[in-house]
Formats: sequence, structure tokens, C-alpha cells
Amino acid sequence: MFLDSLISQIQPLDETAMQNARTRQNMLTKPAGSLGRLEELSIQLAGITGKSIPVIKDKVIITMAGDHGVVAEGVSAYPQEVTPQMVLNFLAGGAAINVLARHISARMVIIDMGIAMDLPESDELIVKKVAYGTANMSKDPAMTRAQAEESIQSGIEIALAEISRGAHIIGTGDMGIGNTTPSSAIACLLTKKHPKEIAGRGTGVDDEGLNRKISTIQRALDVNKPNANDGLDVLAKVGGFEIGGLAGVMLGAASKNVPVMVDGFISTAAAMVAASLAPQCKDYLISAHRSKENGHGIMLAWLGLKPLFDLDMRLGEGTGSALGISIAEAACKILTEMATFDEAGVSEKSD
Amino acid sequence: MFLDSLISQIQPLDETAMQNARTRQNMLTKPAGSLGRLEELSIQLAGITGKSIPVIKDKVIITMAGDHGVVAEGVSAYPQEVTPQMVLNFLAGGAAINVLARHISARMVIIDMGIAMDLPESDELIVKKVAYGTANMSKDPAMTRAQAEESIQSGIEIALAEISRGAHIIGTGDMGIGNTTPSSAIACLLTKKHPKEIAGRGTGVDDEGLNRKISTIQRALDVNKPNANDGLDVLAKVGGFEIGGLAGVMLGAASKNVPVMVDGFISTAAAMVAASLAPQCKDYLISAHRSKENGHGIMLAWLGLKPLFDLDMRLGEGTGSALGISIAEAACKILTEMATFDEAGVSEKSD
Repeated sequence: MFLDSLISQIQPLDETAMQNARTRQNMLTKPAGSLGRLEELSIQLAGITGKSIPVIKDKVIITMAGDHGVVAEGVSAYPQEVTPQMVLNFLAGGAAINVLARHISARMVIIDMGIAMDLPESDELIVKKVAYGTANMSKDPAMTRAQAEESIQSGIEIALAEISRGAHIIGTGDMGIGNTTPSSAIACLLTKKHPKEIAGRGTGVDDEGLNRKISTIQRALDVNKPNANDGLDVLAKVGGFEIGGLAGVMLGAASKNVPVMVDGFISTAAAMVAASLAPQCKDYLISAHRSKENGHGIMLAWLGLKPLFDLDMRLGEGTGSALGISIAEAACKILTEMATFDEAGVSEKSD
Repeated sequence: MFLDSLISQIQPLDETAMQNARTRQNMLTKPAGSLGRLEELSIQLAGITGKSIPVIKDKVIITMAGDHGVVAEGVSAYPQEVTPQMVLNFLAGGAAINVLARHISARMVIIDMGIAMDLPESDELIVKKVAYGTANMSKDPAMTRAQAEESIQSGIEIALAEISRGAHIIGTGDMGIGNTTPSSAIACLLTKKHPKEIAGRGTGVDDEGLNRKISTIQRALDVNKPNANDGLDVLAKVGGFEIGGLAGVMLGAASKNVPVMVDGFISTAAAMVAASLAPQCKDYLISAHRSKENGHGIMLAWLGLKPLFDLDMRLGEGTGSALGISIAEAACKILTEMATFDEAGVSEKSD
């Protein structure tokens, strides 16, 4: 199968490139280690790209949208029509992710993975619609196994296309009213935590809404009994089309030695699906930020990822990954542009 | 006295502008509060500038260099000659701060506040040398009260000059071998903590060096008995010329309603001196990051500042403030560039 063949292409990080980057960091005009995580990040990026001095110039944020049948259970503070409305806002350039993508000079790629209605045709919108929203996972599987595969496959194709256009890094983003509910279900299943420990207020449900959300997640897990050892089954039973798509983006990027900046809660659920299918892809992921959404820290720990920052953000869209990409770019520039002690004629540490 | 007159010009934040910014944040196409600290920051910037929609375009990083007589006690891992060598590296564009300033499109302003030798003339170097390094504070006051005033005065002048050139935000940075020692002494005095709780490894001293540093700080406090209620006395007895200069930059910026992005440990010590002289200036300060240096968290808590990020950095130069300025700029762009629910035709939250 195509997916298996792609997964087998994901290699361990390039140790030689990492060692070279580490050596160079220690030659640059600063106390060794004094740039902390910027240094670590530059070394990881060297390992991912196989280049001792990695370059991040061409930056892409892939924002995937999909709808969720589970909104019928009253799990979101916003009506479902907001998904297409916000996608139109992305296309018009007025959403937070547009602002932050422009701020870091990244291009945006916007994908309809399964919005519940058709949007007007647009050169800026790529349509990979698997269906008009998922089924209500609290009653039935969110999608079929074939649809789960299709969503991942589409994500892989999108990533490979952007990489062939020159992308040096891909940031992930999501839009989908209700999508913290399937993301929480995925997280509960894989981390074996109760929905109470994972589910948060999403876009802002009240206490009653939160309790409804928690019991809906529990019901979805009870009804569908997804197999936690089978990433595709997890995605099919309690996932979403944009979540599958983002998992595919991560797998596609990892197979081509391209780093992925993982946004917040939804993107992290997608990363868990990707890691279930291909554990080695985790090395290619960078967590941008710790989301304010409840269980995000537990999910990041499960993945072994440490977020770059925590600004109490909980918007999604790729807003966290935009800010994270800027830090990754800075980390690479340190390695490329800084003078060494020798070049600058600066005395080294006296031991 | 000039300083008193300037301090009296520092006003409370503009409540109307803050309220307008807060109102606008809630009209933008995102769940209220979902951009977390970016939203809070935009509101603070509105209050600082008095503009409901503040703009950050012209960005300046002021990096001040000075030497410290206390290096004679063996408190640093690097020899004193590294101060001028690194300033030459700044002028040549090869230091970490050059890379990060370019990354965020900020100009750099480099000041000799008191390097122990003369540097070749350069259009890029502003010389405000108070003296050829401070005295050894473990034996005598680091400087006279007149020199403390002069260093602050020079910092104010530098800030006002950059603001008249158009600076919308000023980031602070420092260079000075040994300067974590006076910074720690200032922090110990004002927070009433033991040097053990504040002093860290600076550029990388070993255990023996750290113990030497701690006892040197204690000796400096014992010998000089600075008056913790008199910011000028604190600066004179256990400070540094670049620390006084940076305190002046903060006071000057606050007097002109310009925000200051405070770098790490040394800049935070300077902020403590500034806040001792003019407590109201704290509202104009934004802490970029939590430095890896030991007592930084205690110092930030004393100032009532919460850092934007923590990337285990401990380099100084303004490297943290550069990354912080990019976040502040992004926060302003959110307020300026995002569409409102009305403009984008997006449905609002159902209550």
C-alpha cells in the first residue's frame, strides 16, 4: 500500500549533520549553549534536513478545514456555518492566520478537507473534500476506513506538492467548528486518559457545554471502541478529515526530510495519529506552543515534544505555528550568519 | 534636576486607548481571548502609546557596553578584552544580536558606555563613555554618584534621539564581561535575597567560579552598604555604566510613551534601577524572556513582569528582546489587520 511505502521512507535524523551543526554552534561568538533552545532547534533542523547548515526561507502554512457531525451534540460555542465563513475569511486575508503568515512572510495554503457545504471556486482554495463533514461520532464512526485513508493520502499529496514548490518548512493549521471534540477523543484513546483530563472549552463553551462535551467524547469512545494500536482505526472512528489531512502532511513532510511546525491542540491530535502510523515521524515535528486547551500538555508529553512557547493561545488556524516558524528561521540564521571566534578575533573562554 | 523633571513626565497608561483596543479585540474574527497574551500585549501597547490601534514598524535595539572592575575577582569565564572584541563584532554584523535584529528588521544602536579601552572611531558606534570601566565594587563603590547620574542621563538622551528618529519600540541589550555580578548585586539588594538565590553561572563559570562570584557579591554589598531606597545609590555602589544607561533608556522611552522590550538578566537589573527611581515606568516595560540565569524569575516577580517566552537563553546583547519585539509587532498587526465579525460576515458565538 502507498502509505506503508511512504512510511518506510521516513529515516532517522542525520547524525553527521547534527554533529556538524553542534560543532559549529560551539565555534560561534557566544558562550556555548547560551542561545538555549535556538541552538537545539538548529541542530534538530540540521538532522531533519541532512544539512549541517540548514536554511529556512520558503515557509508554508497549510491550514485544513473540515466539519464534524458531532456538533449536533452541542459541543461547540459557535454554529457550524462558521467553518465555511472562516475559510472565506482566510481567502480574503482577514483572519488571524493571514496576519501572522504575512508577519513571517509565509505563504498560506488553504484546503477544504470536508466542509459541510461547497464554497465558491477560488484559485486560493484547494478542494480535497472527503465528504460533507464527518458523521456524528457519538453514534457512528466519524468516517469509513477508506475515507480515513483518503484524508491522509490527500494530506501527503499536498505536502509533497508544496515541497516540490520549494517549501523548507511546513506549519500546520486547522479550522473546523467542533474539532476539539474529536481531537480530545483521539488524545484520550492514545494517552489512556479520561475525557475530563483532556477536553477543554474549545472556542469557549460554558460549564454545561464542557460537561456535554466530556460525555459526548466518552460516548464516542464507548460506541466505536477504536483500536488504539491502529492509527487508521482511531482516525476513522473518532477523527476528522482535517485531522487526517494534517497527519498526512506530517508524514509527507517527514518522508522528504522537511520539518513540520505543529500548531496547537488539533494539530497535536493529528501528530498523534501520524505517530501512531509512523513513530519515527516524531523527530520531524517541532511543537510551536502549549495551547491553553486542557489536555495539550499531556498530548505533547505522549509525543515527547516540548513546545517552544506558551502565550495562552487557543485559536488554531496555524497561528501558533506561524510564530514558531519565525523562531525556527531565526535558529537557522544563527548558524548561517554568525561569525566564529576565529573570524571575529574574539578570545575564547579561559578554562 | 533634569531626572526628576523627566520622571514626572511618565504618565499612567491611557485607559481609553486600552478600552478601545480591548473592545476591538472582541470584535475581531476569533473567539474572544483566544490569542491570549498577544491580545493582552496589544492592549498594553495601546495604553503605552495612547493609540487605540498602536503601530510597531520602526524597531530599534539599543545595546550598551561597559566594563567592570569586579572582574579582577575572577567572576567571569571570559577575559575583559572580550567586551571590546564583541563590540567590534557587533559593528561588523557577526554577533547573535546582529542576526536577530536583521531577522526582525530592527536597527541596532551600539553604545560604548564605559568600555575599559578606546575603540577605533566608527559611524556605527556612539561613545558615551563614563569611564574606562567601573571600580572593583568588592572594594569600593563601582562609580561616583555623579557617574551614576551621567550614565542614566546618557541613556535618556540616546532613547530620546531614537524616538525623535521615529522608533516605535525600543529593545534593550547589554555587553560587558562580568556584568551578571553587579546585576546580581542590584537584585539581591532590592529583592532582599541572598546572592546564592540570585547569582548564576553567567557566561559559564564552574562551581568554584560561582562560589567566588557569590562571595564577591556579598562583599560588595557589605563594603558599600547601598541604600535600597535610593536607586542612584544602588547604581553607584554596585552597578555598571551600561546598566545605568539602560535604566536611562527605559525612563526616556516611558517619558515619551514608547514601549521598551526588556531583554534578560542585565536588562532586568537595569529595569529594577529604573523602577526604583520611577515606579510608574514599569507599565512601559515588557519582559521578553525568562533567562536561564538563576535569579531572573525573582527579579521579574519584583517588577511585576511576566516574560513572553522561555527558550533557555542567557546571552544578553538584546537577543531576547529581538524575538520579543517580533511578538509585539505581531500583536499590533492583529489589531490593525484582522477583519471584524461584521466585515467578514462571520457568525458570532451563540450564548
